[in-house]
Amino acid sequence: MIVANLIAKKRDGHAMTEPEIQFLIAGYCQGTVADYQMSAFAMAVCLRGMNDQECAWLTRSMFESGQQLSRTVSDEMPRVDKHSSGGLGDKVSLILAPWLACCGVHVPMISGRGLGLTGGTLDKLESIPGFQVDLNDAQSDQVLTIAGATIIAANETVAPADRRLYALRDVTATVESIGLITASILSKKLAANLDALVMDVKYGDAAFMKTFQDARELASRLCSVGAAAGLPTKAVLSDMNQPLGQAVGNAIEVNESAQLMRGEGFHGSGFNAPALDRLYRLTRYLAATSLLQVGVETNRSQAEARLDAHLASGEVMERFCMMVDAQGGQAKFPLSVAPALTLTAKQHGSVQSINCAAIGQAIIGLGGGRRQVGDAIDHSVGITMHVGIGDQVHPGDPTLTLHAPVALHSEYASQLQQAVRLCDQPIETPPLFQDLESTTVPS
Amino acid sequence: MIVANLIAKKRDGHAMTEPEIQFLIAGYCQGTVADYQMSAFAMAVCLRGMNDQECAWLTRSMFESGQQLSRTVSDEMPRVDKHSSGGLGDKVSLILAPWLACCGVHVPMISGRGLGLTGGTLDKLESIPGFQVDLNDAQSDQVLTIAGATIIAANETVAPADRRLYALRDVTATVESIGLITASILSKKLAANLDALVMDVKYGDAAFMKTFQDARELASRLCSVGAAAGLPTKAVLSDMNQPLGQAVGNAIEVNESAQLMRGEGFHGSGFNAPALDRLYRLTRYLAATSLLQVGVETNRSQAEARLDAHLASGEVMERFCMMVDAQGGQAKFPLSVAPALTLTAKQHGSVQSINCAAIGQAIIGLGGGRRQVGDAIDHSVGITMHVGIGDQVHPGDPTLTLHAPVALHSEYASQLQQAVRLCDQPIETPPLFQDLESTTVPS
Repeated sequence: MIVANLIAKKRDGHAMTEPEIQFLIAGYCQGTVADYQMSAFAMAVCLRGMNDQECAWLTRSMFESGQQLSRTVSDEMPRVDKHSSGGLGDKVSLILAPWLACCGVHVPMISGRGLGLTGGTLDKLESIPGFQVDLNDAQSDQVLTIAGATIIAANETVAPADRRLYALRDVTATVESIGLITASILSKKLAANLDALVMDVKYGDAAFMKTFQDARELASRLCSVGAAAGLPTKAVLSDMNQPLGQAVGNAIEVNESAQLMRGEGFHGSGFNAPALDRLYRLTRYLAATSLLQVGVETNRSQAEARLDAHLASGEVMERFCMMVDAQGGQAKFPLSVAPALTLTAKQHGSVQSINCAAIGQAIIGLGGGRRQVGDAIDHSVGITMHVGIGDQVHPGDPTLTLHAPVALHSEYASQLQQAVRLCDQPIETPPLFQDLESTTVPS
Repeated sequence: MIVANLIAKKRDGHAMTEPEIQFLIAGYCQGTVADYQMSAFAMAVCLRGMNDQECAWLTRSMFESGQQLSRTVSDEMPRVDKHSSGGLGDKVSLILAPWLACCGVHVPMISGRGLGLTGGTLDKLESIPGFQVDLNDAQSDQVLTIAGATIIAANETVAPADRRLYALRDVTATVESIGLITASILSKKLAANLDALVMDVKYGDAAFMKTFQDARELASRLCSVGAAAGLPTKAVLSDMNQPLGQAVGNAIEVNESAQLMRGEGFHGSGFNAPALDRLYRLTRYLAATSLLQVGVETNRSQAEARLDAHLASGEVMERFCMMVDAQGGQAKFPLSVAPALTLTAKQHGSVQSINCAAIGQAIIGLGGGRRQVGDAIDHSVGITMHVGIGDQVHPGDPTLTLHAPVALHSEYASQLQQAVRLCDQPIETPPLFQDLESTTVPS
């Protein structure tokens, strides 16, 4: 096969065969397909698309460029994972992993770091003194045996072709392809040797997918390609026009997660605090989906009841602490955060929107997020939201609390003063999430 | 400017600005834009296109990456050139350059080498013992002063950005873009510091553009972008479903050119031999176009009469010999060629088509053409066609003569036996060429 001819085939809009895709990816790993050829191919894919079958082959080829986590100790346990397309305040993984572990499934979660507006699960966990994310296969297996859940960084054996291709796409404007995004996500998940995956695909201002339509397209693609590539996948579409939960940052997100996992304020069917309740409901739905996927439960209400029981009993927090301990962390919560400055509303009104970009940029500016891969993180900074879209506020009501070094308070307070936009009309609270299966496919 | 954002702009189908294109090309030359970014950009251009203005900016940016030939000695003389999109037996440049020089214009021709089915003017000239194509600026200027025409290789100062981009496009399936082809051709022609350019855009089996439609699109693009980039350009569309003239090869093409330039068999308004007459008519039309472009003549019939007078007097061959001599070559013609084997027709019929690919592949197989850049050339091999499309043939009539080492005669004779396809019905001789301006633009 001649590389330029394969690129030309995709350029001209034809579907590739499995051997052709394997040849490209294997060649890319071996160096016989150059970066400049792969980027031209990626651009052709961006503009010409890939069908589900091509995408499944690409997924498997990238997965097979590396190794799969072993299942020695846990052959008998169902293995599940959840993956999110990323957003502001998304700490679902921290809660969901130990919660599912309480239900007798294993959650070997390979997570990422934050970049731009999107926070990273690994960064949040590294707020915990001593917490280790770089575990080898045997070490993560041991944590799984002890705690039933482990959250680790991808090492070099996980889909190396994807890692190289992703770095290339980032600098060649070829990230925005549903097919390439799908293959990138699923190739890494296949490496975790899972029985089922649930995807939380976010839409809105602070999401990678800005519209519900686009998110649904990605979600649908992930499910069909996941199935074709041998990884049963379900998807939920969730709102990312405002932070998920109250906390945005690193240590403060761990603290909010701990609050939820301890069941503080849990009244058997939810939390009174609206932001915490939203976080609870989305996380429980995703966790219940996992339990149904692997047949641990057979109907959703039973699955949710079982999850609620574990929450009420405090077991979820115990599991979390077991995992933290097994990964070398000091399980003492709450973690300390930077000094607080609370901003208040100047007028009456309904919260019409929340400027997620302004909040995300403030976090990055304070060192709580990254502009570039490799930037250091200050885990102690963050923002706590006191209001959500649709809430009524009155002059003097707290809108958000900034956690930052005192010297920076005034600068960032003025930046953030306009982050909560009010209007005179009542505003409806946006729907929190929808199951992909409950959405209607456009004709 | 961020490179990935510029690539994204083209990916999304937007027009680029002049500073954006300059930034990309300058960055590519300086190394701040990587090959893998340029190939992704090139693929986006292939699939999204470029308007005339973008294409003119790209042309100028690539031209400005290098230097322009000086016009010291020849400031007062109009400078013209002809460029062909390439084909089998296309020796027009060899004849046209000295012919125009006879008419008081300068022809500083920067030519290329052959690759694949397309022969190269430089390879043909190097059949002449001692002929030097690698001249510096002062040397080529001297040849121009002596002979009025020079045919040289592009050196490293001629549009280096185009050279790098062209090599990249070749291995990334991004050659097939009218916009990129146009910019590549014109950037090199701008370097020759011309007053006018005439393009011979070929269509047919042995041409880069397979259809008349595609050739017209390229021709039209070249004219509009040439004008926008500051190089007045006209175009002719010519047939390349059969070799131009009789000879295909290197030394034998020089010999055929010499035959024409000496005016052998010229009866004042053409040649009796049909193939030579086709070569004469196309070359004269292109030369007359150049004379009209720079105002040396004001109507075509006068221009053609002037060209015919120079041909009849033998001056064209004298000029050619002056140029050969000034470039170090031994002007003794005919050049020797490999031993001949003539194939004959086995039956009656009309020539329906000529298998240009078979002829081109035979030349390459014999070492008269290149599979890859840098392959050595055997200048003595070639094929002489005795028939053209539409000719009537009878059993025993010569169809083509193979010039090759005797040991290879039988192998190539059997390969070439079917190269001339006959049929029972009469076949019309295809039109030789059309002026772009006389074609009707599809609505």
